[in-house]
Amino acid sequence: MKPEPADRFDANELDDVVHGRVRLGIMAYLAGAGTADFVTLQEHLRTTNGNLSVHLGKLEEAGYVTLERAIVGKRSRTTVCATAKGQTALRAYVERMAKLVQALG
Amino acid sequence: MKPEPADRFDANELDDVVHGRVRLGIMAYLAGAGTADFVTLQEHLRTTNGNLSVHLGKLEEAGYVTLERAIVGKRSRTTVCATAKGQTALRAYVERMAKLVQALG
Repeated sequence: MKPEPADRFDANELDDVVHGRVRLGIMAYLAGAGTADFVTLQEHLRTTNGNLSVHLGKLEEAGYVTLERAIVGKRSRTTVCATAKGQTALRAYVERMAKLVQALG
Repeated sequence: MKPEPADRFDANELDDVVHGRVRLGIMAYLAGAGTADFVTLQEHLRTTNGNLSVHLGKLEEAGYVTLERAIVGKRSRTTVCATAKGQTALRAYVERMAKLVQALG
């Protein structure tokens, strides 16, 4: 991959759904861990219940994750998985960022 | 730099002032071009006058850019420069992103 000058970096090419800081944290975590439950994500991202729910909802709406709700004992447990579409979107995002990193590195 | 697993990527370490998509576009452009006037940035980022003003204001407030306003003929012209603090912030941001790129690359 040929480095490009930093001033040719086009911020408009970044997928906003992935770029949001909490959502990027979720997608990166899932890329490493494969799957995660809600509580694990919340601890990892140090965010509130409500905030995490909002961002998971946006990722689900974009088709980037699936949410599976189950009752375990008396508690509900949400398991989050990245979809193939979500993995592709993260890869495209990271490729764009890699060009910026190269240009500025 | 040793690659780290993607699930160790900490989105909380990203500087929100730099991370915002338009602001990242501004800082990256300035890193390449050194300085830019308002109109050039607006064309490069394909954003509205108002939106660009808001984001330049946030960068100025953080001490990441300076804005110099001058009257040229009958028009006002704003020149934007990245400060040393802004360059350092962009570098730190890119280093965090480089780790994510490495982990997922």
